[in-house]
Amino acid sequence: MTAEVQASIDTIRAEVAALHDELVRYGLVVWTGGNISGRVPGTELFVIKPSGVSYDDLAADNMILCTLDGAVVPGSPGSDRSPSSDTAAHAYVYRNMPEVGGVVHTHSDYAVAWAVRGEPIPCVITAMADEFGGEIPVGPFAIIGDDSIGRGIVETLRGHRSRAVLMKNHGPFTIGKDARDAVKAAVMVEDVARTVHISRQLGSPDPIPQQAVDSLFDRYQNVYGQDPTGALS
Amino acid sequence: MTAEVQASIDTIRAEVAALHDELVRYGLVVWTGGNISGRVPGTELFVIKPSGVSYDDLAADNMILCTLDGAVVPGSPGSDRSPSSDTAAHAYVYRNMPEVGGVVHTHSDYAVAWAVRGEPIPCVITAMADEFGGEIPVGPFAIIGDDSIGRGIVETLRGHRSRAVLMKNHGPFTIGKDARDAVKAAVMVEDVARTVHISRQLGSPDPIPQQAVDSLFDRYQNVYGQDPTGALS
Amino acid sequence: MTAEVQASIDTIRAEVAALHDELVRYGLVVWTGGNISGRVPGTELFVIKPSGVSYDDLAADNMILCTLDGAVVPGSPGSDRSPSSDTAAHAYVYRNMPEVGGVVHTHSDYAVAWAVRGEPIPCVITAMADEFGGEIPVGPFAIIGDDSIGRGIVETLRGHRSRAVLMKNHGPFTIGKDARDAVKAAVMVEDVARTVHISRQLGSPDPIPQQAVDSLFDRYQNVYGQDPTGALS
Amino acid sequence: MTAEVQASIDTIRAEVAALHDELVRYGLVVWTGGNISGRVPGTELFVIKPSGVSYDDLAADNMILCTLDGAVVPGSPGSDRSPSSDTAAHAYVYRNMPEVGGVVHTHSDYAVAWAVRGEPIPCVITAMADEFGGEIPVGPFAIIGDDSIGRGIVETLRGHRSRAVLMKNHGPFTIGKDARDAVKAAVMVEDVARTVHISRQLGSPDPIPQQAVDSLFDRYQNVYGQDPTGALS
Repeated sequence: MTAEVQASIDTIRAEVAALHDELVRYGLVVWTGGNISGRVPGTELFVIKPSGVSYDDLAADNMILCTLDGAVVPGSPGSDRSPSSDTAAHAYVYRNMPEVGGVVHTHSDYAVAWAVRGEPIPCVITAMADEFGGEIPVGPFAIIGDDSIGRGIVETLRGHRSRAVLMKNHGPFTIGKDARDAVKAAVMVEDVARTVHISRQLGSPDPIPQQAVDSLFDRYQNVYGQDPTGALS
Repeated sequence: MTAEVQASIDTIRAEVAALHDELVRYGLVVWTGGNISGRVPGTELFVIKPSGVSYDDLAADNMILCTLDGAVVPGSPGSDRSPSSDTAAHAYVYRNMPEVGGVVHTHSDYAVAWAVRGEPIPCVITAMADEFGGEIPVGPFAIIGDDSIGRGIVETLRGHRSRAVLMKNHGPFTIGKDARDAVKAAVMVEDVARTVHISRQLGSPDPIPQQAVDSLFDRYQNVYGQDPTGALS
Repeated sequence: MTAEVQASIDTIRAEVAALHDELVRYGLVVWTGGNISGRVPGTELFVIKPSGVSYDDLAADNMILCTLDGAVVPGSPGSDRSPSSDTAAHAYVYRNMPEVGGVVHTHSDYAVAWAVRGEPIPCVITAMADEFGGEIPVGPFAIIGDDSIGRGIVETLRGHRSRAVLMKNHGPFTIGKDARDAVKAAVMVEDVARTVHISRQLGSPDPIPQQAVDSLFDRYQNVYGQDPTGALS
Repeated sequence: MTAEVQASIDTIRAEVAALHDELVRYGLVVWTGGNISGRVPGTELFVIKPSGVSYDDLAADNMILCTLDGAVVPGSPGSDRSPSSDTAAHAYVYRNMPEVGGVVHTHSDYAVAWAVRGEPIPCVITAMADEFGGEIPVGPFAIIGDDSIGRGIVETLRGHRSRAVLMKNHGPFTIGKDARDAVKAAVMVEDVARTVHISRQLGSPDPIPQQAVDSLFDRYQNVYGQDPTGALS
């Protein structure tokens, strides 16, 4: 392993560890639930949260380095622990979507509530058109133990504008060009899940014309923003 | 630029930067969403949040100084960054409502939920009569890219008692005599949006007689308060 | 004024100032809304929050000392500021309910939601039977400016087990043997308002038999507790 | 008492005191409500929170040591205070369920809301199948003062997969192999109570096939996890 690759791994370890604070800050996780991973650019590796470790105790050196088949790299820091129980799903996404640099999974309440009904979130808010370009889709029911969760994520999101999928009876997975971008999508999917839920409780949300949705998505992705993450306000 | 104007700009930079903490404190924003601006008194300038910068990193010297047509003042501190993507809307308000000294925009959940249905918030709480003098109105559907958001805000709020407007499918904009006053309105509009929503979930809110609304609004604006912001309890 | 009375005033100033932190901690207030007062034992005086001061800035020496007719004691610390705009209502309670040592007013969301519908909160939770001995009653619609709010509180709570009243279209007022006890009631009334609301959203809460309500209230008030405030768990 | 037993008591005191912070962190308690206890391994003793003490003031040396009949051990640290008013219920559980090492009781809002309607929480989320293996059952209405609460907990949970019971019109009690495990169950029961509630507000949750529930529960309890608490993510 070259010094350059090692430096890149260290950077991603630190970033992925630190980004978990955002899941706590926005109330997307409880106890040890939820997980973030980030691809190490230019390698066949990714970094993911360990299983069953408290959010207070996460740090760069207990993040776990995995190959794209989801195996822990032997002897790497943190390799005495098991990686997140969702590692296989993350690995499947990295193997099958080379453009993806980060994956996030949470059980955030409002997103799960839509997932439990198997109902996509309609695009009725301009910020949702900006960020997701349309509705948030539902993925298939799949349980842990083989590739079926990963496959469900990839089949739903490939070619879709949305970076978020609501896996049936389970919860949201989000992708992004890097881990930070996927975390932003996880934060935003819960926010729109909650807001559209609240709006629907007292009546019918008014739709946004498709042309306006397209225009907002195009502008947000291509025109604005002062940094490469496209994070705007 | 005189020393006095410079001092005034510095004061507004510091105030606008610090006020963003209130948006976080009250849960009105996520990620880098939301923005506050403040007019520099006695000038044709205003100060606004940069685009895509984390709330943790906002400070007086990365706030952005703009002219009333929404252009960044070249060479001023922070001018290497883009201003908030909503700058044109803020600028339109300052050009057309000279009495306004501050503008705030958020995507706070309950206010957006009413905006998504295009439904004004009825005035059924005495604190809402105090603060807004009646219902919170809905503004037209308008998308980013020209003056249509700014025009929608101004046309809705001009001559209206309310300092808040719910822009259709988008979210609340609030105005005030200064940035702090507009922030207070942003906090209060979410609070009343939530409370009236909750009340409506289990039945029909009882209206407040118009005479009582008028009397409360008049008293709150004119009689009470120990400081010029009219902040009461 | 004797040294003993002065010490007692100082104690109540410090307690009332510090108790406001609990309103913030439990999310019962926004901006400068809400207020707590405490009677100075053995005197015709009470201490109350100033009007329009941020919660971050409240301290023992900006609390305001008032006589039982609601007038600020001239020359006392803090007397350069106006007392809470609800001072007249607090004063009315102290004049007419000598057993009351503390009064709290908030606009906490769920309690206000019931107040807006003019609906008492039914006693369907054992903790509510413990604390309030039955339903939380609704008081009359009354607006600020004379004794009508204070009179509405007293007429509703006199002889009632509940230490909380939901003033119509306005919000909760709570009383207690001291300021801390009234704050506890303010915290608990919002908690039961929220929980009963949530329960009602998906069906009909089952009532608790009256005999059990009576038994729980009696036990909680008389049997348990290791300190004079009756604070239990 | 041997030095070994004394060390074990000290450990449990510290753990039980510290775990109360989790109840606050997750918003499961208000004021002094809620309580945690932990069995001292290899003894006929357990440690429980004192009654009516603020969460800010809980510490290892004010936890209270009790025998399995619920009596305070005379002369032990903290024995000048009364134990939690729910001590009899905890003691009953320890006497009758020797496999239980920790008990938690809260009045967390969403769990209480289901308890008030006397309605079990259906198992419609994969994380709920992992953690509870099926629905969360409702226990009988029982009031404080004798063994009826403890008996209701034991009769409902004995032989049940769920470590949580919703006592009718009262609130959740959870058990675990130790205090931390019971706290995790208390956190998770509120999370699923909230999420399933939200999902039900806008339609019908889709059930999870029983075979998938069984498979998820079996895997979570037996296969995964890197530490003895089975805490996963």
